[in-house]
Amino acid sequence: MNSRQALHDKFQRNVVFDLRVKLSDEADPLAGILAAIAKAGARVGEVERLGHDKGASVYDIRTFSKTDAMAQALAAAVAALPGVEVVHMLDTALESHRGGACEIRSRSCIRSNTDLRIIYTPGVARVCKAIEANPALARTYTNIANRVAIVTNGTAILGLGDIGPLAGLPVMEGKAAIFWEFAGLSADPVLVDSHDPDEVINVVEKIACGYGAIQVEDIKAPECFGITRELDRRLDIPVLHDDQHGTATVVLAGLFSALKKTGRRIEQVRCVMSGAGAAGTAVADLLLAAGAADVVLADSTGALYRGRTAGMNAEKEALAARTNRENAKGTLADIMKGRNLFIGVSQPNIVTPGMVKSMEARPVIFALANPVSEISRDDALAAGAAVYADGRMVNNALAYPGLFRGALDAGVQVFTVEMLSAAAQALADRVPEGELMPEMMDPATHKAVAAAVVEAAHRPGGRPVNTL
Amino acid sequence: MNSRQALHDKFQRNVVFDLRVKLSDEADPLAGILAAIAKAGARVGEVERLGHDKGASVYDIRTFSKTDAMAQALAAAVAALPGVEVVHMLDTALESHRGGACEIRSRSCIRSNTDLRIIYTPGVARVCKAIEANPALARTYTNIANRVAIVTNGTAILGLGDIGPLAGLPVMEGKAAIFWEFAGLSADPVLVDSHDPDEVINVVEKIACGYGAIQVEDIKAPECFGITRELDRRLDIPVLHDDQHGTATVVLAGLFSALKKTGRRIEQVRCVMSGAGAAGTAVADLLLAAGAADVVLADSTGALYRGRTAGMNAEKEALAARTNRENAKGTLADIMKGRNLFIGVSQPNIVTPGMVKSMEARPVIFALANPVSEISRDDALAAGAAVYADGRMVNNALAYPGLFRGALDAGVQVFTVEMLSAAAQALADRVPEGELMPEMMDPATHKAVAAAVVEAAHRPGGRPVNTL
Repeated sequence: MNSRQALHDKFQRNVVFDLRVKLSDEADPLAGILAAIAKAGARVGEVERLGHDKGASVYDIRTFSKTDAMAQALAAAVAALPGVEVVHMLDTALESHRGGACEIRSRSCIRSNTDLRIIYTPGVARVCKAIEANPALARTYTNIANRVAIVTNGTAILGLGDIGPLAGLPVMEGKAAIFWEFAGLSADPVLVDSHDPDEVINVVEKIACGYGAIQVEDIKAPECFGITRELDRRLDIPVLHDDQHGTATVVLAGLFSALKKTGRRIEQVRCVMSGAGAAGTAVADLLLAAGAADVVLADSTGALYRGRTAGMNAEKEALAARTNRENAKGTLADIMKGRNLFIGVSQPNIVTPGMVKSMEARPVIFALANPVSEISRDDALAAGAAVYADGRMVNNALAYPGLFRGALDAGVQVFTVEMLSAAAQALADRVPEGELMPEMMDPATHKAVAAAVVEAAHRPGGRPVNTL
Repeated sequence: MNSRQALHDKFQRNVVFDLRVKLSDEADPLAGILAAIAKAGARVGEVERLGHDKGASVYDIRTFSKTDAMAQALAAAVAALPGVEVVHMLDTALESHRGGACEIRSRSCIRSNTDLRIIYTPGVARVCKAIEANPALARTYTNIANRVAIVTNGTAILGLGDIGPLAGLPVMEGKAAIFWEFAGLSADPVLVDSHDPDEVINVVEKIACGYGAIQVEDIKAPECFGITRELDRRLDIPVLHDDQHGTATVVLAGLFSALKKTGRRIEQVRCVMSGAGAAGTAVADLLLAAGAADVVLADSTGALYRGRTAGMNAEKEALAARTNRENAKGTLADIMKGRNLFIGVSQPNIVTPGMVKSMEARPVIFALANPVSEISRDDALAAGAAVYADGRMVNNALAYPGLFRGALDAGVQVFTVEMLSAAAQALADRVPEGELMPEMMDPATHKAVAAAVVEAAHRPGGRPVNTL
């Protein structure tokens, strides 16, 4: 993990600090400060002028550094400029999470005792009795039809590993913020302090009656599979594991988009995948369900095939049984040869230009490892890739808000493969010319996903995602 | 329950409907409509004029009826008036809960991909790592220090009994709305679908790491005692059972206020209480802790005394051991004689004027049974009561928002008797001349409670409420 973090720091500028500076009227202009930041190796984001005070202008400057040391160095360099004072330096990610990323609010004002007596006792008794008589009315007269539990036990938080549920809470709150902003959903972080899958299942089962849907989140493989499947089996509300199904949906959307660019049909897709965890498994299943000709997965042991004995578990046995049509063996490099789609959900820098060159001409490369890809864009394109995407572009947040909005609006009890495929197609249909993925910030993106899920829900049939 | 509801309907007008009417310009004025409503036996609340359309004025009129039948009758009477059309009739309590009383929102806007990358991945990793290194930072960089779980298993929802957690959800959402409006707290309904106290405890223990405090709510006695005590013992966050401690706090506030009016000191209080469930037990304990001379409780079997064998359980045995100094026996009527404070948290209409007359001169009567009191105000005052209050006036919502705000602000691990007493004194100190309780809608009321709790938390010592 530390080596991954080091790589991360080497290639990206994700250390964000907001610098407040006072610039004396007699000093060099703002350009001098920006030049000092660039010279330190960092980038400048938003610049805001706050005003003028006692012969000095006050600015807030957002900076993107590779490391904390770089951020400290740029601040020192700025402070050393004549006529410049650094008022403070705020850690932007921490500050944006100060007090939490989400909150639970009243939906109406309580301004009088009459308001209180209607929203609470005695008026609320009428609402309780209506639901007691007809439990389906809870979807109308409570927030339940908009309420998603984001369940984690903290065992696989981002790429940080098993840091526990409390340290994972900012991720769950971030997701809740996204659910609200993109889909108007009330998403509730539920931290289950347990490493025992059966206990996680039992606890969630007992509190599930307060929710309209469950998003399983950042639980490590292979436990995540059994937890998600069993919850979906026991509960009459839909259950999705974002690391599986959310990822699979955005990858399929990216594939639809790439197929259009490369003039291929999905039946021609011969995919090789690096990574056979939560994401890899679900992506493989969704690709096959969507009609891909073949998918072969590799994990750190190499190709996953029927009869392999090293590094297997029940989930991988089952996966080997339903993938790898020709039962190919060997290393990742071996099984990349001649294939036309690479999907990486694994480790940084494990794909070489030579491996890309060994593929079919003009392959599609989705190198999605976070924070550093399996192969860089430049290397992949130089080696002949027709389409390249990394984890920034193929972002789950394109899919899950609309998936849950649609499932809740349709009132379904399970997510189906058909809903995920329809969502992927809806995303692909909204890709602007010259892009691979649609615009995340456009509310229409998430509305289109939700509408596609509702439409798929209304079609007969459908294969539940959690029984693949 | 049905007989209680019938009594409720007989005495109160809690059936609220909003009538929208069109009143032709040629018709009688609005007064005719209001007269028809009054004639049907209902009361009129807010009247709002929405506008004028095609020779008619449109009004919304709030009505308070005793029963649904009365509401239907008044609508029919209004519709029968010449030149009046009833456009629609909305069930106000249901409508005010449509979509739920609370929701989970983002605390900041997400308007750009940079915003997203700061609030969510990759920026959020920095927040996670900070909390992993120092878990106490979760109070700063998540919503946890503002987040209260409202835990119920639905076994004692209002006076409605065991209607299950889902039918109880509107109450929890109403409480969440109150927490937000009065204390800026994020309160999260947690429905535990279990009648097994151990299971409730275990489930809540496993998810408690996501909260700053726990409010146990509407769980029936005697199970509520063990659940609250055991959760408080196991968890390092404060746990309060509103039906016990919230009620006890507002009752003590009312008592402080009544003592001032009657010129008594708390050491002179000789209390008789009707009801030995969650509320009765906690009120008795808090009164004794505050210095009351004696408290004797009666349940449906009669006085609770040491050596009683009928209708006992472990909680009542313990309660009998620490109350009823003189070990008085007999009926409620027997033990009311000569006492100067009656507190009812039991059944409607079980106290007669004669029983009040048998008390010390100028007694204080708190007849708090909901929705219908143990004795009416008129009867109690006619029988010589110096101070009278019912459940509307002595309302828990005066106490719990500030109790939790204060406990969270002070970062305490348990609620203490001293915090409850200080909150009660703060409430009593804010009672306007001529009133018994302070104004619920005044934000200063809840701020005063919170400040008193914080101050009590900073004093050394303190007896945890859940070990009495």
